[in-house]
Amino acid sequence: MNHFTSIHDVPNIEALIHKALSIKHASVFESPIVNPKSNIQNPKTLVLLFFNPSLRTRLSTEKAGLNLGMNVISMNADAGWKIEFEDGVVMDGDKAEHVREAAGVVSQYADVIGIRTFPTLTDRERDYAEVVLRQFQKHATVPVISLESATLHPLQSLTDAVTIEAHKKTARPKVVLTWAPHPRALPQAVANSFVEWMKARDVELVVTHPPGAELAPQFVDNVQIEYNQRKAFEGADFIYAKNWSSYTDYGRIISPKENWTVTAEKMALTNQARFMHCLPVRRNVVVEDAVLDDPSCLIFEQAKNREFAAQAVLEEILNKHT
Amino acid sequence: MNHFTSIHDVPNIEALIHKALSIKHASVFESPIVNPKSNIQNPKTLVLLFFNPSLRTRLSTEKAGLNLGMNVISMNADAGWKIEFEDGVVMDGDKAEHVREAAGVVSQYADVIGIRTFPTLTDRERDYAEVVLRQFQKHATVPVISLESATLHPLQSLTDAVTIEAHKKTARPKVVLTWAPHPRALPQAVANSFVEWMKARDVELVVTHPPGAELAPQFVDNVQIEYNQRKAFEGADFIYAKNWSSYTDYGRIISPKENWTVTAEKMALTNQARFMHCLPVRRNVVVEDAVLDDPSCLIFEQAKNREFAAQAVLEEILNKHT
Amino acid sequence: MNHFTSIHDVPNIEALIHKALSIKHASVFESPIVNPKSNIQNPKTLVLLFFNPSLRTRLSTEKAGLNLGMNVISMNADAGWKIEFEDGVVMDGDKAEHVREAAGVVSQYADVIGIRTFPTLTDRERDYAEVVLRQFQKHATVPVISLESATLHPLQSLTDAVTIEAHKKTARPKVVLTWAPHPRALPQAVANSFVEWMKARDVELVVTHPPGAELAPQFVDNVQIEYNQRKAFEGADFIYAKNWSSYTDYGRIISPKENWTVTAEKMALTNQARFMHCLPVRRNVVVEDAVLDDPSCLIFEQAKNREFAAQAVLEEILNKHT
Repeated sequence: MNHFTSIHDVPNIEALIHKALSIKHASVFESPIVNPKSNIQNPKTLVLLFFNPSLRTRLSTEKAGLNLGMNVISMNADAGWKIEFEDGVVMDGDKAEHVREAAGVVSQYADVIGIRTFPTLTDRERDYAEVVLRQFQKHATVPVISLESATLHPLQSLTDAVTIEAHKKTARPKVVLTWAPHPRALPQAVANSFVEWMKARDVELVVTHPPGAELAPQFVDNVQIEYNQRKAFEGADFIYAKNWSSYTDYGRIISPKENWTVTAEKMALTNQARFMHCLPVRRNVVVEDAVLDDPSCLIFEQAKNREFAAQAVLEEILNKHT
Repeated sequence: MNHFTSIHDVPNIEALIHKALSIKHASVFESPIVNPKSNIQNPKTLVLLFFNPSLRTRLSTEKAGLNLGMNVISMNADAGWKIEFEDGVVMDGDKAEHVREAAGVVSQYADVIGIRTFPTLTDRERDYAEVVLRQFQKHATVPVISLESATLHPLQSLTDAVTIEAHKKTARPKVVLTWAPHPRALPQAVANSFVEWMKARDVELVVTHPPGAELAPQFVDNVQIEYNQRKAFEGADFIYAKNWSSYTDYGRIISPKENWTVTAEKMALTNQARFMHCLPVRRNVVVEDAVLDDPSCLIFEQAKNREFAAQAVLEEILNKHT
Repeated sequence: MNHFTSIHDVPNIEALIHKALSIKHASVFESPIVNPKSNIQNPKTLVLLFFNPSLRTRLSTEKAGLNLGMNVISMNADAGWKIEFEDGVVMDGDKAEHVREAAGVVSQYADVIGIRTFPTLTDRERDYAEVVLRQFQKHATVPVISLESATLHPLQSLTDAVTIEAHKKTARPKVVLTWAPHPRALPQAVANSFVEWMKARDVELVVTHPPGAELAPQFVDNVQIEYNQRKAFEGADFIYAKNWSSYTDYGRIISPKENWTVTAEKMALTNQARFMHCLPVRRNVVVEDAVLDDPSCLIFEQAKNREFAAQAVLEEILNKHT
């Protein structure tokens, strides 16, 4: 694997998911988890650049790198490091460094670069062009991993695919992505990315959301959309809840009249579905306490699987590049 | 040891102090200080969460973890990570994550979690209930170490007990905790915790402070209080200076008419007492230059002992849990 | 080597440059780069204190320390850690810690301390006295490395000397330091330091700048100054561009009437000179795109050499002190 910025970078999705599961298995039984390629005298360096804040992505990716014997250097680049992404500009404004130099310099020190960058939610064209990630990737000379970009969150989606693979009870489970309420305008990245990965898996995918919450057509073409949340839940094996702001009226908070909170009563419509969410989650807004606190809820296992997903991705990249 | 949030978590105080002293001894003689339980192929992970800023606690605890071959990940959680601690709340306000998920998620990545959280100094009931620490501990699934909480600072107090043990010249030294002036409202945590640990040691403890600086009764019950600082200093072997704001008129800055600064002249009343302070210290407000710059002053040795105290605590916890 | 705060700390400049080059050579060929003195059971600790923001200095110095098997702890000390540098002060203002304690405490945990501290650009006397760095160094009990101080940036200059050594085509190359425009008031540190190091090398050094951009006399005494940029460029083997604010009218932004931007057309006056800049660089203000994007440009090699320069310095200091 050369980069990991979307599902399209992955040569063998099935193999990557099973690699993560085998890392998880080894971890539980405390077998050695160090990559045989790692070398204490020549450790590889993972540099993580956070243009936006991060908790679980940072913890899980740092840990994955350390598991592999890598040196990990994390930098909060959110304040003060203003980068110019346009070519040919006279840089006499507030941007002190061009992405050509920024990406080129970090590449001098890193064997792999991770980047987190959120959308503007005001400039749809720019966000969906993934200007920050793509420009950084273009000018970096080492592999780039997305730690969540403007429109995608592939490390989360790989984790979700791993979690579903580990807990499916039928060959072709019904997986429902349901929109849920939230007081803030959130990116569409987790939803876009989840749909992209589920389409590549052997699952029955249904996306349910109120009118106005339609995702970008390039993601949901050929995907079953159901505007009736209760109907969508019927027979579901996995309920994946997530809020996102409007794609069509870009960045607007969607406030449907009906109650879209995931409740225990709605979960009773399913085939004893396992509840999933990428976290952080607002209790009793996105989902009721009763659902989160039920033993069948998978949110902590998802969080744990982030580590193995990141480790699988790093191993694939290191195996290719070292 | 399961957790380390107060002296009550410690099964054998004497043994813990001597463990820290033996780590210190090994360190000086450059013998191996790596825990035999540590395993380079399965390193344990220490996650330190700072809800409040930290310099020496962070440096010393990170170093202690690294000494033990642990992977250490520190996160400044002070800005932006607003956590809900109440159960059953509809989370439609400014708090994006509930402590149930916050503690549960960090537990997925950490073998030990360290938490620093300061008091509000406005809500005494909440501070003394240690809501943040106790809720985090309740919902974490791995051991929790206090890096200073609202009302206690046990890593500092263990350090102080180690320092006194190493420098006592008599079987039962006289230890004086003296209040000292400060322009800001400071927590009572260091003072509460010091009293708690000294009560468990074979020392003659005297607490001296102006009227209005009384500590919480649960800490100073059965402790000798002396409102006359000079009288308290007579015959002392250790002078431990610290400012704290009012417990009774909660959070108020105490401004006595008399001068409570520790001076060389006052130190002359003691039995050649060693001066101690947890740092940072305001020179010529808390204590005169002459006292700090005297070779008998123990502040840097206290700072150094923080490392060995943290390492002893981590070793005890790792030995129990791995 | 005891410290590394300016060229005057270096016993053998030639040897240090060649040490960096040999580390670089070993790195390229993936030979072991671990210092034989390093010991996994007793790793040395490098504490980096950033009183001002840093990207490439932090990345390169952290990586250099990790290359040597050191434990590296970086702290952003820019916000909240206000330090008193004057002796004898009654510390009842906003400064919570004296440099005596700050440096003394960090020395308890560190085997080597790195410090970054920028100038005020308003108080020339204080900046050129290097109060922060010198006071920290005075009260530290372990070696101190400058990560750029108020008036010097020796890690950058060592890097530049290494880069020139590796790319010179004649025994005595012509090296031109040219002032360049910038919209902000920048320190003189890189320029001062570059001049200081080049004077110690076997090069023909020319400094070119507009009137008003004169550097401090202690640096440019006996240095060839040329106010005509085009004339300075003639026959140059290396063009080193850098903006700095006024030393004489301290901290003022210099805005000459002529265009001082380094252009491809000006580069054509040279002896096929290699372009150098410490980065970050403002494109089309300091230097044209065409110059930066030309394959002969050395900026990324300079960035990479920062790692080897820092590693050479750390090795010299560790060899002396451990």
